[in-house]
Amino acid sequence: MAAMMRLVVFLLALATIFGFGISASAKSAPPASVKVESDGTVHVPAMAVPVSSLLSPEAKAYMAEHLKDMQDPEKVKQVAGVPVFMKGYLTKAKATFGHTMTERQIGGVHVFDYVPTDGIALQNRKRVLINLHGGGFMGCFPGCAELESIPVTALGKVRVVSVDYRQGPEHVFPAASEDVAAVYRELLKTYPARNIGIYGCSAGGILTGMATAWFQKHGLPRPGAIGVFCAGLTMSAFGFGGDADYMTAAIGDARQAPAWPAPADLPWTALPYFKGASPADPLVSPGASDETLRRFPPTLIISGTRGFELSSAVKTHSQLVALGVQADLHIWEGLFHGFFYNSDIPESREAYDVVLRFFDKNLGK
Amino acid sequence: MAAMMRLVVFLLALATIFGFGISASAKSAPPASVKVESDGTVHVPAMAVPVSSLLSPEAKAYMAEHLKDMQDPEKVKQVAGVPVFMKGYLTKAKATFGHTMTERQIGGVHVFDYVPTDGIALQNRKRVLINLHGGGFMGCFPGCAELESIPVTALGKVRVVSVDYRQGPEHVFPAASEDVAAVYRELLKTYPARNIGIYGCSAGGILTGMATAWFQKHGLPRPGAIGVFCAGLTMSAFGFGGDADYMTAAIGDARQAPAWPAPADLPWTALPYFKGASPADPLVSPGASDETLRRFPPTLIISGTRGFELSSAVKTHSQLVALGVQADLHIWEGLFHGFFYNSDIPESREAYDVVLRFFDKNLGK
Repeated sequence: MAAMMRLVVFLLALATIFGFGISASAKSAPPASVKVESDGTVHVPAMAVPVSSLLSPEAKAYMAEHLKDMQDPEKVKQVAGVPVFMKGYLTKAKATFGHTMTERQIGGVHVFDYVPTDGIALQNRKRVLINLHGGGFMGCFPGCAELESIPVTALGKVRVVSVDYRQGPEHVFPAASEDVAAVYRELLKTYPARNIGIYGCSAGGILTGMATAWFQKHGLPRPGAIGVFCAGLTMSAFGFGGDADYMTAAIGDARQAPAWPAPADLPWTALPYFKGASPADPLVSPGASDETLRRFPPTLIISGTRGFELSSAVKTHSQLVALGVQADLHIWEGLFHGFFYNSDIPESREAYDVVLRFFDKNLGK
Repeated sequence: MAAMMRLVVFLLALATIFGFGISASAKSAPPASVKVESDGTVHVPAMAVPVSSLLSPEAKAYMAEHLKDMQDPEKVKQVAGVPVFMKGYLTKAKATFGHTMTERQIGGVHVFDYVPTDGIALQNRKRVLINLHGGGFMGCFPGCAELESIPVTALGKVRVVSVDYRQGPEHVFPAASEDVAAVYRELLKTYPARNIGIYGCSAGGILTGMATAWFQKHGLPRPGAIGVFCAGLTMSAFGFGGDADYMTAAIGDARQAPAWPAPADLPWTALPYFKGASPADPLVSPGASDETLRRFPPTLIISGTRGFELSSAVKTHSQLVALGVQADLHIWEGLFHGFFYNSDIPESREAYDVVLRFFDKNLGK
């Protein structure tokens, strides 16, 4: 009898877990506290979510630290272009990854130009990577630029040029695309287009796509390969669009999901840089145009299951694949928007490896 | 002044959205209703989540229908091995995708053997796919088997053998692995191993990994390529492990997240098929062993952002990539566990294309 009871419990659990009922469990409807509207909107009850069971011990501690940092106003402040919570990651990266940085102008645009202390690898002599930093098109230079460039130049033994592109609110679209194009045009005098890679995280991820679209429009050759990290090629009032606008905010950055229903007069994006721009313009939101995406070079997309860009990242990947573009998707479980800014967890090292192998495989030599 | 106020609102929104504060917003902590424990556990407030803005119109309607079906005890019942909510999908698939099914024994195991009405394509004459159906190791044959095989045989013009492997609670591990091995051993008399692909969804996805590990242990050659769909190669008491145990239950299947903290005496899995088995055994949970995974053939992993397998799927992908195995990840935004059982949405057609191109590229001819 105890065994029978245990079996019934198992069957009920199974029906709940796998979504497929079996006769014995047909009477057990899900708990009434999950409500579904006729349009499919789900009213999700409050819940407690522990750090992911599938993270490394280092990443579990990092996740807990990050969530607490996000609730501390002093930590999210930027001082001289470096968010306070990133300062320790930057100190560590500078000490760990041997590099030389030269500040200069390229094509009239201010850049940080990185080379590895160990020297550029033989196969990278005729290659360069352009980095476009994150920061919501209104900050995080040089903080994000350094954290996105230093591990890459040192581990990849490759030159990285990080662009200090114009941002909002002082500047608006297409200022940043123009700056990237000016740097690219100048580098094309030294490097063939197929030997140039472009990548960036967050705002820098979508700017990578925007710049690629801009080059198409302005008759510049296609770069060899691009990396859209911590981003996808769509935007919304809350971030990048899709489910992640709602589901990852709390567990990724300790912030509350948007109110529902959303106010009717919500702007299409909250970013001042896009004032006056339209999300239907593929130079702004390349995901809006199959024609634009179809001509993209090999594209690497990186995100995390707690990244508020998750939905846009996977949607952009599916869209590129359906259009016949070579697109590689890598998602790290249980980690958040820009997790690899901390180089000190195994998951970040995995991500650097993926980035370097992708460019090595897809760029000309 | 109004413009200035609007700007301040923008800046605050930005700081919230991008996780990076700026000086002007440093005073605005996130809403107090998101609480973080010192170990990183997040108390997520109740929220309303609409269907994803990034879905096709057909998929939006499908998502709403699925969530309502999951709350109807009559719909989740199985009748003759077909969940009621899947019945319409099966009728449609049978009418849409021309195929002939022959019931037979292969290696002493009952199978459904599919060939396309249009004939097998020239490049597939010496190839066969083995399908391992979903259903939590205790049901859904033939429902899941048909829905996983019929579109593949017809669109891919390839033979598909779907195995009616032994399941729980009558049978326990390793009965299913033995059955798959028996079918595989018999097919090896006709097809070279590198020309045989194996794939499955949900329980069939993890069984694909378990069988691959089983072949290693029992001296059988490695298949040419495998597909782990709606699954990853880890398990937990609530499904497959990681964040998705919590975050996708409500929006994927209208069910409540597990209670937290979890009871200390929770079994490692709720599935009766695994009674007496250990999650440390790579024949049970291949993700537990780098040694096992390192010898995997090219592996395709498919999931959706509302799939309760999402975390395990992306973790398995990262693990394979770090071990140097060729592994491709494809995630569909806003869709749930086994979404492609309905062939009538564009996203499912994209998934079939990905599956067929993967096997075509990676199997021998």
